[in-house]
Amino acid sequence: MHRLLLALFLFVSTATAADAPAAKRTLGVLLFPGFEMLDACGPMEIWGNLEKHITLVTIAKNAGPVASAQGVELIAQKSFADAPKLDLLLVPGGFGAMKALKDAETIAWLRERSAEAEITMSVCNGASILAAAGLLDGRPATTNKAYWKMATRPGPKVKWVPEARWVDDGNVVTSSGVSAGIDMTLHVVSRLLGMPAAERMADEIEHDWHRDPSWDPFAKKHGLK
Amino acid sequence: MHRLLLALFLFVSTATAADAPAAKRTLGVLLFPGFEMLDACGPMEIWGNLEKHITLVTIAKNAGPVASAQGVELIAQKSFADAPKLDLLLVPGGFGAMKALKDAETIAWLRERSAEAEITMSVCNGASILAAAGLLDGRPATTNKAYWKMATRPGPKVKWVPEARWVDDGNVVTSSGVSAGIDMTLHVVSRLLGMPAAERMADEIEHDWHRDPSWDPFAKKHGLK
Repeated sequence: MHRLLLALFLFVSTATAADAPAAKRTLGVLLFPGFEMLDACGPMEIWGNLEKHITLVTIAKNAGPVASAQGVELIAQKSFADAPKLDLLLVPGGFGAMKALKDAETIAWLRERSAEAEITMSVCNGASILAAAGLLDGRPATTNKAYWKMATRPGPKVKWVPEARWVDDGNVVTSSGVSAGIDMTLHVVSRLLGMPAAERMADEIEHDWHRDPSWDPFAKKHGLK
Repeated sequence: MHRLLLALFLFVSTATAADAPAAKRTLGVLLFPGFEMLDACGPMEIWGNLEKHITLVTIAKNAGPVASAQGVELIAQKSFADAPKLDLLLVPGGFGAMKALKDAETIAWLRERSAEAEITMSVCNGASILAAAGLLDGRPATTNKAYWKMATRPGPKVKWVPEARWVDDGNVVTSSGVSAGIDMTLHVVSRLLGMPAAERMADEIEHDWHRDPSWDPFAKKHGLK
């Protein structure tokens, strides 16, 4: 009986180990002219360090350099047309978001890719783009606190949460402004890979992780409370 | 007498206003293959949003795309040879830093440019590169806590501080690992542009700024205390 259990244990362990590579997820990060540098690069620091579990791809309408709101250019590795199937999708904000949300091609691509994705995430007023695509209608979500009125305007049907570091609504997770994207990302890592993996990552990058999604002193600072 | 005072006031105001553009500083951010994304992009988020005061330039041995340790590429706008005079110099870390510090051309360029700069900054094991260039000899400095031994090895003459979010030694300011670069940058902003400017920026990017340079729970977490 012991032998049978051992054989069964070995079989299950081996099968799990063999399955591991298939569980690797692909994360696509949308870039557009005027995206906010830290909105994209904070989360990418974390996902990019989880290369055993995550394949990170930067995507824009056209592959090649895309200028951030801070002037520095990042390279989009894939165009909308060439992007692989995405398990995870990240949409940063920035002043360029207000133009991107009016771009029909961007909105159509987001709708199509978000429908296939396990989780769609936004940082800052990246939520304005998701809202413009109708992806947040009737759902709770948050966005940038410093530019709250401008950021929420494209989503009249969204249940905007004015005091939240991030809002997890299952297959859509939205974060507050800029730095909040790092806290939200660690939360999503904890969901997908477990709390120890998220804690290890926070310690590795020496980040003071705010784990409570309702922690948000900036709501008050920006007059939303 | 009042007229004279008014004239004097107007003269001083005009002179100050006219001088303002001259006070704009140029910040150069060194990129090398395998630089840590957030080490560079956290500080650049802040400096890039201070475009009235700062001209931000990314620099590498050769201009063009440079791959981060996380795989995503940033564009270096200038080569070593073409870089303008730098008032501020930022050196990120990353696993690529251990190779960059052995590169004679990089070290020579750093020595030359740091000597002319008002402030040279490093994030994470960017301090290992400064140490290899002899720029930290006999001075207090800090670096990454998770890889402390490896990061401090290139600087046997440095007065390494194992528990510090950042160390301000006047014209050289070094920060702890990755995320610490954001806190250090806000400190340098407060030095150059005043505390209100730094606080405004922290609130704008919704960052929980650790203003106390001795705040460092990661020293203990990584066994340095």
